[in-house]
This record gives sequence, C-alpha cells and structure tokens, in this order.
Amino acid sequence: MTYYTPPPRDPKASPVRINLLSDTQTRPTSGMREAIARAEVGDEQIGDDPTVNLLCERVADLLGKEAAVFLPSGTMCNVTATLVHCRPGDEILAHESAHIIAREGGAHAALGGFQITPLNGPDGQFSPATLRAALHPRSRYQPPQTVVSVEQTANIGGGTIWKKADLDEVVRIAKSNGMATHMDGARLLNACVATGISARDMAAGWDSAWIDFSKGLGAPVGAAIAGSRDFIDEVWRWKQRLGGSMRQAGICAAACVYALDHHVDRLAEDHANARALARGLSQIQGVEVQQPETNLVFFKPDGAGISGDDMVRGLRQRGVLLAMMDGRIRACTHLDVSAGMIEETVGLVREIVRGV
Amino acid sequence: MTYYTPPPRDPKASPVRINLLSDTQTRPTSGMREAIARAEVGDEQIGDDPTVNLLCERVADLLGKEAAVFLPSGTMCNVTATLVHCRPGDEILAHESAHIIAREGGAHAALGGFQITPLNGPDGQFSPATLRAALHPRSRYQPPQTVVSVEQTANIGGGTIWKKADLDEVVRIAKSNGMATHMDGARLLNACVATGISARDMAAGWDSAWIDFSKGLGAPVGAAIAGSRDFIDEVWRWKQRLGGSMRQAGICAAACVYALDHHVDRLAEDHANARALARGLSQIQGVEVQQPETNLVFFKPDGAGISGDDMVRGLRQRGVLLAMMDGRIRACTHLDVSAGMIEETVGLVREIVRGV
Amino acid sequence: MTYYTPPPRDPKASPVRINLLSDTQTRPTSGMREAIARAEVGDEQIGDDPTVNLLCERVADLLGKEAAVFLPSGTMCNVTATLVHCRPGDEILAHESAHIIAREGGAHAALGGFQITPLNGPDGQFSPATLRAALHPRSRYQPPQTVVSVEQTANIGGGTIWKKADLDEVVRIAKSNGMATHMDGARLLNACVATGISARDMAAGWDSAWIDFSKGLGAPVGAAIAGSRDFIDEVWRWKQRLGGSMRQAGICAAACVYALDHHVDRLAEDHANARALARGLSQIQGVEVQQPETNLVFFKPDGAGISGDDMVRGLRQRGVLLAMMDGRIRACTHLDVSAGMIEETVGLVREIVRGV
Amino acid sequence: MTYYTPPPRDPKASPVRINLLSDTQTRPTSGMREAIARAEVGDEQIGDDPTVNLLCERVADLLGKEAAVFLPSGTMCNVTATLVHCRPGDEILAHESAHIIAREGGAHAALGGFQITPLNGPDGQFSPATLRAALHPRSRYQPPQTVVSVEQTANIGGGTIWKKADLDEVVRIAKSNGMATHMDGARLLNACVATGISARDMAAGWDSAWIDFSKGLGAPVGAAIAGSRDFIDEVWRWKQRLGGSMRQAGICAAACVYALDHHVDRLAEDHANARALARGLSQIQGVEVQQPETNLVFFKPDGAGISGDDMVRGLRQRGVLLAMMDGRIRACTHLDVSAGMIEETVGLVREIVRGV
Repeated sequence: MTYYTPPPRDPKASPVRINLLSDTQTRPTSGMREAIARAEVGDEQIGDDPTVNLLCERVADLLGKEAAVFLPSGTMCNVTATLVHCRPGDEILAHESAHIIAREGGAHAALGGFQITPLNGPDGQFSPATLRAALHPRSRYQPPQTVVSVEQTANIGGGTIWKKADLDEVVRIAKSNGMATHMDGARLLNACVATGISARDMAAGWDSAWIDFSKGLGAPVGAAIAGSRDFIDEVWRWKQRLGGSMRQAGICAAACVYALDHHVDRLAEDHANARALARGLSQIQGVEVQQPETNLVFFKPDGAGISGDDMVRGLRQRGVLLAMMDGRIRACTHLDVSAGMIEETVGLVREIVRGV
Repeated sequence: MTYYTPPPRDPKASPVRINLLSDTQTRPTSGMREAIARAEVGDEQIGDDPTVNLLCERVADLLGKEAAVFLPSGTMCNVTATLVHCRPGDEILAHESAHIIAREGGAHAALGGFQITPLNGPDGQFSPATLRAALHPRSRYQPPQTVVSVEQTANIGGGTIWKKADLDEVVRIAKSNGMATHMDGARLLNACVATGISARDMAAGWDSAWIDFSKGLGAPVGAAIAGSRDFIDEVWRWKQRLGGSMRQAGICAAACVYALDHHVDRLAEDHANARALARGLSQIQGVEVQQPETNLVFFKPDGAGISGDDMVRGLRQRGVLLAMMDGRIRACTHLDVSAGMIEETVGLVREIVRGV
Repeated sequence: MTYYTPPPRDPKASPVRINLLSDTQTRPTSGMREAIARAEVGDEQIGDDPTVNLLCERVADLLGKEAAVFLPSGTMCNVTATLVHCRPGDEILAHESAHIIAREGGAHAALGGFQITPLNGPDGQFSPATLRAALHPRSRYQPPQTVVSVEQTANIGGGTIWKKADLDEVVRIAKSNGMATHMDGARLLNACVATGISARDMAAGWDSAWIDFSKGLGAPVGAAIAGSRDFIDEVWRWKQRLGGSMRQAGICAAACVYALDHHVDRLAEDHANARALARGLSQIQGVEVQQPETNLVFFKPDGAGISGDDMVRGLRQRGVLLAMMDGRIRACTHLDVSAGMIEETVGLVREIVRGV
Repeated sequence: MTYYTPPPRDPKASPVRINLLSDTQTRPTSGMREAIARAEVGDEQIGDDPTVNLLCERVADLLGKEAAVFLPSGTMCNVTATLVHCRPGDEILAHESAHIIAREGGAHAALGGFQITPLNGPDGQFSPATLRAALHPRSRYQPPQTVVSVEQTANIGGGTIWKKADLDEVVRIAKSNGMATHMDGARLLNACVATGISARDMAAGWDSAWIDFSKGLGAPVGAAIAGSRDFIDEVWRWKQRLGGSMRQAGICAAACVYALDHHVDRLAEDHANARALARGLSQIQGVEVQQPETNLVFFKPDGAGISGDDMVRGLRQRGVLLAMMDGRIRACTHLDVSAGMIEETVGLVREIVRGV
C-alpha cells in the first residue's frame, strides 16, 4: 500500500488557496490564539499545569473514564496504549488499513515488540466474525492475543463510522478472550457529531480511547488518552520514557480546551461540506466517488482518460491541495474549508476532466 | 489461523505405531547413534569443536556461501538472520503462512522489533507480482522494507516447492530495492531431491539460507545457517546473546554430519511414500487430497459426514498420529515411516470413512 | 540513588513565592506570550511550519551542524539520538549521574535495547582516563561500544562545566575507537555564557548535540537536536515513531526563537544569583555549599542538627520550593528568580538553622 | 573491564596438555558417552522426550521448585528468566562482575529492554547493605526495580560462595520491595559441595534458579532452570521464541542425568586441586594468589618482572592453557584436571618466574 504525502510547500509554486489535504492542516483561529496567549501554565510534568489538568479532566469526563493524560500527538496515544496493554511478543488485532499498522513507521514492533495481525474488511472495518475467525487458542507457537484496536472513524476506509452494535460486539469478543480494547479516536468526535451518539457511549467498554485536537478540532498540537487510573499511571511512565513529558504545556492545552468549547458542534459543517463535495463530484461524468459518512471524501477519475496523479497535479496547479491515498484521491474538509471552496473545487475538477 | 499440536504422549493411550505427525519426530538410527557416541568434541563456543567445524564447512559448501554456523534449532536460524539483516522498526515481507509469522511466537517482533507484512498467494507462496505490489517508497510513515523471506519448501502451503525462476525473480526484485534475501530452508533438501536442483543453486542469490537437521534428515538436534563471513560473524554475536552458544556440541553435530552422508538421497523415499499416500487417499470417496510435491500430504474428509478432528481422533485410536493444521489434516513422511505403514494408514482412513 | 520530585501543588499549602526547584519552572514572559500568539504556523510534520523551520536553522547554525529537528522535550533528543547511533545490544558510555541513566526511566534499554555503562568521576564528569579504562576490545561476550555521551553542564554533578580540553579528548578517544559522540546540552548555553566559549565550539566534534528551550531559556515546550543531515533524517523517522511529530508546532517554536533572541545573555544573571546564593549560604554555620559554576547550587545542612529533608520542608512552609537530589538540596536559579529572592532565601535558611 | 578468550586452537601450536581455561572444556567420559548413545528420546518440544522429562524432574526436585525446563545453555537460563520476570524498562540489580552484565553481550538490554544496575562489593558479591542503598522509591524518572540477581558461585569474584545468611537477607530485602529473585547457579553445585548446604536450601526463597551441566558437571551441552509452574510455562514461551526448543534433546539430557548421578560429589576433588594449586603458587616468590573457595584460582605475577600476559603465554608454550580475566590469571579445575597436572603447573609457573 502506498501513500502520498505532499512535499514541503514549494515557495515558487502557486499558493494553496484551498487546502483539502487533511484536517491536520487547520490554523488556530484568532479566538484560539487569544486563549493560547492567556493560558495559565505550570509544569505539567509534575502535574502542576492547571490548563493541562483541566483539559485532562474534560477528556476523562467526555470519554467516561477515570483519568486522562495529554500527549504531543495521536501517534503517542497509540504507542503508549499498546506499550501499557502488551508485553513483547504479544499480538494486536487491527484492520489492515489502521493507522497503527499503516502510518506509524512500525512503531509498535520497534518500540514494544508487538506483532500486529492485519484483519480484512470493507471500509476500513473488520466484522466481528472476522475478528472471531482470527482468534487462536493459547500456544507457545503463536503470540498471546492481547489487544483489539479499532479506529473511529476509519480514515483510509473513507472516514466511515463503526456502528455502535459492532463496537459492542467487538468488546464482547475481546473481553471473553481476555483481551484489552483500544479505540484510536483521532476522529471519534466526527463520528459522535454525525451519529448523535455521545463520546462516552462510543468509548464505553473500551479500556483506552483517545481524541486528537490537531485534526478536525483545529488546535495546533496535542491529543489526550483516557482510561482507568492505573492505565493512565502506566501511560505516564511511557510518556516520560518517550520524551512526551513537557513543561508549560498549558500553552498547547489552552487551544485544546478552546476547541472542546467551540469546535465540536461545528464538525457538522465539515460533514455537510463533504456531502456537498461528493454530490458535486458525483455529477461529473468520469469521476467515481465514495459516499462520505463524515469529513473524508475519496474519489478517483473513472474512464475520464486521466489518472488520479494527473488530477491531483492539475488541482494543485489551480491552488487546491489534496493527496493520493492508496490509489484514490482523498479530500478532507475542516475548519479552514468553506462551502464556497467546495463549490469551487467541484468546478475545477469538472474543468480538468473536460479539458482532457 | 489455528494449529494443532498434540499433547504429550498419554501413557494410557494406545501406543503410536505410525507417526505421521512430523519429520521432527524421527529417532536417531543405530548408525547415527554410533557416530554420536564416537564424536570428536571440543568447545564450540570458542571455535574449538572439530565436528562442529566440519559440519559448518560442509553446510557452507553445500549452500555455496562463505561460512556457516551451527545453532540449536531452525527457529534460531530465522531469528538470528533477521536480527542481523534488520534494525528495529524495519519491515520483513513473507508469505502469511510462513514459519516466521505463524509459528515462532512473535519472536521477530519481540526480539528484534520487526514488523512482518504477510503476503498472500496459493500453496504458501507469494508471486513476484504480489511482492512488487507490496513495495512502497521510503517514507517516515512506513517501516523501511529490509528483508524478503521465503520458505523452501512451503510447509503449511503443502510442502510445495518454490520454482527456481520465482526464486530468482524474488531476488531480483529484492536487490533492486536494496533488500536482503533470506531463505528458510527447513526442508530445502526435500526441494533439491525432488527437483534435482542443487542446494547451492537454490540458495544462489540469497543472502542467508539454512537447513534443518532434525526434520527429514533425522538428526536429533540442530540446524545451520550460511551466508557471507561478515553475516556469520554477526549471527555469532546474536547466537551468544540468545544463549545458543554451546560447548561440546560435536555430540549433536556428529549426527548432522552423519545425516548429510546418509540421509539426503533417501528423502526420495519419503516423497514416494507421500505420493503413495495421496494416491491411496484420493481413491477413497469422501476424502479430498492435495497432490504432494515433497513429503507433506494435506487432506480432509469431504462429504463423508465426519469432521477432520474426528478423523484425527479415530486414527489416533488406531495407533496413527497426525495433526490438524489450518483446518486440514497433515501427514508427514520421514525416516521412520515405511511403505507398509502408508498402506496401512490408507486402509485405516477407509475404515473410518466407511464406519460413519 | 534517590531523587525527590515534589508532588503536585497542594492548593491548601502556602503559595510558592520563590521557586528554586528547577529552571524548568519558568513561565513565559509577556513578550514571549506575544510572540506565541502571533506565530506564523503550518504543518511541521511535513516540513511546512515556517517558525519551526526558522528555529531549526537557527539551532543548526548555533551548534555548527548541517541540520536540526524540533522535539517536544530534551528526553526525546536523547532517546532519538541513541536510537539512531546504536543498534540493540550496543553499549553507551556515560557518567553514572547522567540524565540518560538516572532520569529517563530506563528509556534507552526499553526503547532501544542499549546497555549503558556508568562511569565514575567527581562533579558528574568522567575523566578521559576513566573513559579509556572502560574500553574493551570487540568480543562476542560484550556489547559493541558505540556511543560516548556527556552532559554539558553536568546537572547532578552540580551544574559543572566540562572543560573544552576534556571534551576534545573524549572526542579523540571516541573517534579512534569508532564510537559516535553525543552531547546532552540541556544546559549547554549556561556553559557557553559562563565560559565565553561559543556553542559551536563546544559542540565541535560531537556527532549530535541538543539544547533545551524549556530550562534556563524560559520557553514553555521544546528542545532541538542537531547533527549531520543523514543523522537528522533518521531522527525524524524515530520522532515519527515516538509520536513526537506535531502539527502547528510553530506555536511552541515561536517561544523558542524568542528565547534565543532574548534569554541567552541573561543567563549570566542566573549565574550571578547562584553565586550570591552560595556566598550567602556559605556564611551560615551549619550549611555546607558546593561552589556553583553555573545556575545550580547544591548544599546541605552540616552539623546543624537538622536533616536536608527538614530544611526542604521548612523552606517550603516559608514559601520557598527546592528539591533534595541525591542527598543534597539543589537550588536552581532562572528567569523567575530575582536577586531579592536569593537574599530572602539565604535569610530563611539562616532562620531555619538557628531555629533548631 | 577486559576479558581474554583464547583464539581457536592453532593446529601448529604445541598441544594443550593441561587445560585450566575453564570447566566448560570438559570432555564427556566414556561412561557418559555410553549413556548418550543409549538415550531414550522423543520430541522434547512437545514434552515427549522421556530423558529430558526425567532430567527436568530431577532438577526441579534438586532445587526444591515445582518445575524445570532444559535449555541449550546457562546464558539462555539467565535470558529467559529476566524476560519472564521483567517488562521493558525494568531494572535488574546485580554485581558489576556478574555474568549477566559482563559476559552476555548486552543480551538483557537487547532482547528484553532491561537496565542492569551494577552493584559493587569485594569478591564478586554485593552486601545486603549495598543492595538496600541502591533501592529507590517508585518514580516515573527511574525504572521499576524488578529483579535481584546473584551468581552462586561468583565467577569473576574468584569462585567465591555467597553465604546462606547473605542470600537469605537479599531475599528478604527483595521480597519486601516486591522484587523477584534470580540465582545464576552456573556453579551452584560447587558451592553446595564445598559447604555441605543442599541445593534446595541454597535456592530456597529464590524465584528462579538454574544449574549448568556443561561446566563442572562435565556434560557436553545444556542447563536447566527451575521455578514455579507458571514461571516455567512462561520460560517455555521464550525458549520457543529464542530458538531454544529442540527435538530429540534426550541425546544431550542423558549426559546431564549421568552427570547428576556421577559427577556431583567429585566436585570436591576439583576444590582440593584448586587449593593445592593455590598452596603451590603461594610458595613461589613473585606470585600473588587469591585463596580459592571452590574450583577457581585467581593469581598474578607480583614483582616478578613479568606480566600476566607473559605468564599466560609462557604457560601456553609449555602446554598449559589458562586465561587472563580482568587483569588476573584464572585457573579452573575440573573433571579433566588431575592432581598431577596441578603439581606440574606449579612447577612450570616456578620455572617461568625464575627464568626471568
């Protein structure tokens, strides 16, 4: 599987006017910048930063867990979680397109010594039946199966939403096999806003769950993982080892608190924009679109005599930035993408398809 | 994927008269025992055991490499090889049914921090095209792809033989992508005897390759891995760390030298017995058989109103030992299995199928 | 060796008026906050944050290296450096009191599989002769010796400064033995300001060196490590795996750039305050003081009929925060500590000693 | 610390007539060879080798533990033990000269991610007080202290015997701090024969303990580790991963059973020979000898105008093999060393000293 990550901005290239590359591209708003500038801070490494502490309480409460800890990134949430849940030589079960397999540089093997078994299934999700079929009895010849991980929403699967019933069934299977459950919630709040199910309900039964502030929520830096108090104590130990312990991190956390206050409900706008984009693209002959469930739209030229790479290049020349991902073009809506930009993007795609 | 490993022998159970469980079950012959008893020995850990040294020279020559080292097991050959070829966070490409993924307890992740990407394909083999499709450009988000590994023969694939042309093509792809090549040759000599291609030719282009003495060759303990002198020096370092350095290991190596002298050509008998077994079973209605290429026969009841587990149990009650492997029954021919035993086994399977 | 880390602030305890715990306790100044609020940002993970890029150029230039990378903490600088320099089972040589041994939770063993050999010597420094005596020839029985690490200044050694001649001699020994050299420069700029030797000269010959912005420089979050371009490329790979890659990290980096512009020269004030503190304390009968070279003052009650713990507690009750470290009390001067506070602290210590 | 390991035997060098290098050099006796040749064997990997099973029962009984497992080497006993007792980032406490620090190539860091803290003390032993002083409270900044390890007898310490009272006190300290206890018993039976204390008593309170068969006991290959049933189950998992699982290992185990029957009591002869050697050497002016407690004699030229290396070379030219170890010459008595050889060696040392 090959991904495309755009190179650092070329100063001589035409400026990016419409950035659909990723919701990680959002810039802090002026309100958020003000919150950052005024943040009350302390030494978060010794539990002494009031803004970080407030954020952790908010996240623990949001996800219905005993405690939470602030980390520099979502990747560190995933890494610390498996480091706590597993011992070297343990097996983690996840969808083959999951971030922990496909996008973390082999970190879980490198840092923890864990073998991840990739499960198949459409839309970035494995079915409970697929999970059941992948279980094996304890044996010296195979690794102990210790963790099941899901990604809500499933990014490479198209931003699809794991159904609550499937989440519950996965938890049941895991628990009856003595496994821990981990939810990569990089875009969990997108799923919550789209379904109306609370984050607390989504995360119920999951031993660890986290949310990312630097994606749809629009904060510059940070993610927070929640779980039992004992789990969080151990995450802290690994946070220290990995170099994730910071000092006056309230500077970053203030933006995250602001995001929880101001940027959750508005994810609905991103979803509406994604639907509008899909609708617009689907009306162009020669473009095939996957119907979006949240803020990610996957599409590709189909019979238009043009390749996906050509289309990405053509759009970039016209000031629109997106990426190829696993053979398809991914457009991501977020805080810095307006309805007008969506309309314009549809027009530009039409122009490119026609121009051929 | 679930394997079956038989429990330790139950003293109250009927004795095993026909052991088709595995070629690892062979007992040393009286000639081999005599060689063991008379072995000239020294301290192999400091390079001072003449029998071990002789064996290593024989194996290096057999596989056409600069040097070889004696290890307690084939698993340690695989483990030391990847430890030398890779750094933590590197990616190994292998068939999803390969021993290094399916049967080594997650050792490559646990001990080395390596992520193994499972490739698909029939008969335990991936095609060169599948390998090519699995390559990705260098990226911080994905592990460096460092090693391609094949298993000759492919055990769970049915003891199938990798074609020389495919081996060569895999080497070409690996080399042009800067990857090392590793051949798990647990049953390499079966492939050589079956095809008439020398071990040296089979291993040509592979940076590391090993053979196992405690499988079809009938020795009690040991395997030897070969490669460049630098590679072997580094394997030695890991052998020491893993606790694979022994002392008067000539006791074991003498049996291996004996096996090279007396038990290679006779693998043809095992293959003939396997073909005879498959032929016999295929004539029983209600049994589905995979045509064997070497000494492994996979079969299963088909429409006989009996499960594979039932058949394994029924055969065990009649003194025949075999295992379920990944949903099928595996019969393995070897030194201790005669043509008469094959005939008898066919008869007992017929009896069980009819009895239902 | 036992360290003391103060518990999270007790809201019912008397407020801390004078915080001598650590230079990690500094709060951003209003000028720095303004720089943060106005920071130009982008996605630093894809090289697109102009403020982070500027900071990295500044650090690379400051330390005389080809490139640099921004990380969430100094610990991550140490961890990524050894992960790049070493392979599992390699040996790192460092002073027994070094941060990488004593304060990083076993990270170098846990994450990299490295064995750190602790070297002895006064003031947190090992002599070149001690280093030479610790070298051993290559052998399978001992780990390859791959890295020599120094900490400039030596924190637990008393904030002492490695002499340039010793640094050079350590480099010579390391290079003639094929070892990489790593400088933990958490307080390197203190050494530079105190000696007048440039950071570039101090770091000359060291393969990797880093500075911390959240210590004496007063920024809230971050450190940056510098080295050759190849080294930094590999650090980036580990930064990604560890979860140290951030997004709009310019928010943090802006404070670091501000610190480089405004807070380097003023370290001289911290050193003057440290000397004043030592002078004042040394005039109190019953207190033993180590003469400071930079901003750290180690002292302990001596024959005053009071323990170090009692004195720390007594000072805390009077609004002064410090820590016991390895049996002595450590006072650290920094941006938020004024000459008046030093005078007051001396008075309070005198009061406590007399009061007994 | 530097060790000397002799190079592989040079065929052109004078033959070694007296091998005092190590008790690992013993050759199997004819009685032992006969036991090997007649060994009843099976597949030990699936618990089916009767001789291995018998050996494990014997060792478990000898050491007073629930179960035991057979491994290719003592190093693998140490490695599997720490892999079971610890998690990555844990701390092991051991004497600085212990085999696990000094002679296993960094295996415990490389394979497990453990940090070993070296403790000081004379004769290869740390005192209970030294252990107590090395303990630290739980903290995120320091690794959890999980295992205390002793080596009975202390090889590099001079083959010295840990006193039962010290062993008990170490156990008490460990247990009251929640730590596991591990006894490297490579030469435990030497200690037992020398003191009259049973192996069961020596190992009482130790969670894991092992004996080596290829040292003083004179078997060619193998060691066995004992502990609780749960501990041994987990050791088995790591044995499999490390590649220590063998097949018809009864070939090796038969020699070990034979050694338990015939070679334990006779260790007293080795001790008598060691005392005779020390007595003889101590009467030579210019030689300094450490009084032996078991079968290891450390000595060095003292004021004789000759270096240790010279003496080792001189003895080698006269057909006597020994090694420099940490600046001293080590002579090791064993099965293949007679009283007459001791007498001759003393004479040759005298000759060399005089000849200068």
